[in-house]
Amino acid sequence: MNNNPYELNPQVQDQDYIQQLSVDCVIFGFHQNQLKVLVSRFKNTDLWGLLGGYVRQQENIDDAAKRILYDTTRLEGIYLEQYHTFGEYDRTSNEQLQLILQKNQISIEDSHWMLRRFVSIGYYALVDFSQVQPSPGFLCDICEWYDLQQLPTLVLDHEIMIRKALACLQGGLDQKLVGFSLLPETFTMAELKILYETILAKKIRMNNFQRKILDLNILERIEKKYTGAAHKAPYLYRIAQRDKIIDSV
Amino acid sequence: MNNNPYELNPQVQDQDYIQQLSVDCVIFGFHQNQLKVLVSRFKNTDLWGLLGGYVRQQENIDDAAKRILYDTTRLEGIYLEQYHTFGEYDRTSNEQLQLILQKNQISIEDSHWMLRRFVSIGYYALVDFSQVQPSPGFLCDICEWYDLQQLPTLVLDHEIMIRKALACLQGGLDQKLVGFSLLPETFTMAELKILYETILAKKIRMNNFQRKILDLNILERIEKKYTGAAHKAPYLYRIAQRDKIIDSV
Repeated sequence: MNNNPYELNPQVQDQDYIQQLSVDCVIFGFHQNQLKVLVSRFKNTDLWGLLGGYVRQQENIDDAAKRILYDTTRLEGIYLEQYHTFGEYDRTSNEQLQLILQKNQISIEDSHWMLRRFVSIGYYALVDFSQVQPSPGFLCDICEWYDLQQLPTLVLDHEIMIRKALACLQGGLDQKLVGFSLLPETFTMAELKILYETILAKKIRMNNFQRKILDLNILERIEKKYTGAAHKAPYLYRIAQRDKIIDSV
Repeated sequence: MNNNPYELNPQVQDQDYIQQLSVDCVIFGFHQNQLKVLVSRFKNTDLWGLLGGYVRQQENIDDAAKRILYDTTRLEGIYLEQYHTFGEYDRTSNEQLQLILQKNQISIEDSHWMLRRFVSIGYYALVDFSQVQPSPGFLCDICEWYDLQQLPTLVLDHEIMIRKALACLQGGLDQKLVGFSLLPETFTMAELKILYETILAKKIRMNNFQRKILDLNILERIEKKYTGAAHKAPYLYRIAQRDKIIDSV
């Protein structure tokens, strides 16, 4: 029995948090030519959710998002962007939260602030899939990557949050060059093109794409990739000036 | 003496609002070739602020913004966009709020939620300058338009809020065609060009601009403008499909 459902640390008290405000993180990764999102399953249920948490009284909201991301991925310094705040008054008024608490034998009063209406600040993060060590959120037992096309049943408006984060990612792809944050340190032009095609859900012509990307002057060509057929081996690239890209919060 | 500083209506109680959360609106207008913002002066001080307010427990955050806008401008159905949530933990920890309360003989306890740290959801609105009837916010005596280059002393981080709203407006100008919302119903191509130049703070070539705008297929050319020199009179335009533009909250 745990009567302190929003933190494992029993020292943390109600008044340490801003009530009725939360932060939710849409964590995107790219693997096997699929854009994926990291979600966590609530113990003893089939309900999944984004990785989220509350904001401490002495904490900037951006730092709350970074803390949640670190707890979930063990990564620091990753691309993170606040994209929208979700505040429909009835977004949290469903029985899913009650069910989750009940299934985990957590008893809090109906009037507890955790069961009241919440406004949630949405952030999206772009991570190198291969670097992440997923760690389930509190009250959760599994943390897994899901294809955007095959999401499990998500609580509250978390699916809407993911769709909107994707739209913002698509919108910022050219302007902010954010896509690179989803790739490992080195990549081929073909891999980069597939990433763009996957995010934008459309085909791109290689010649135009390669010219546009190289014109940005942020890539460094490093060496021939060994494939066994040397004359066809594609070049590998890496970001020469990563600080130009990581300009998020 | 007024002990209920956040609403004129004494029926409204603390628990009707989400605590530590506010909405602030950056209201842009365009007049005499200047981009202007509507701000309100706090009574008995030289401090100005954006028009803002709190979110009722049974109210969507977008509806809170619309309510604040209506109270301030008497306009409905105007272009409104949530652009960023401001949540540095120390953004409200200054003495300005205390001073405003003191100067207006409002006494509330130091521990009152109104004096605690606030997270504020920023919206920007684009209005037809000529249609607005400015109405001061609560605790304010004047509501006026200011040039962006000549802002008065603003409380808290309101100047940062305005700068960021401008950046978002600039970013969305081409993509979302939001600029038209700042113009009266009819306008010349030259007026539209000046609007774009003012928002973007750079010169634009007329030929390219006119072609780009006309290619959007959203303008209707309505009649010759009478200037006394008929052969030089510019065409007047209006938006043929305004619903294509007003896609905000």
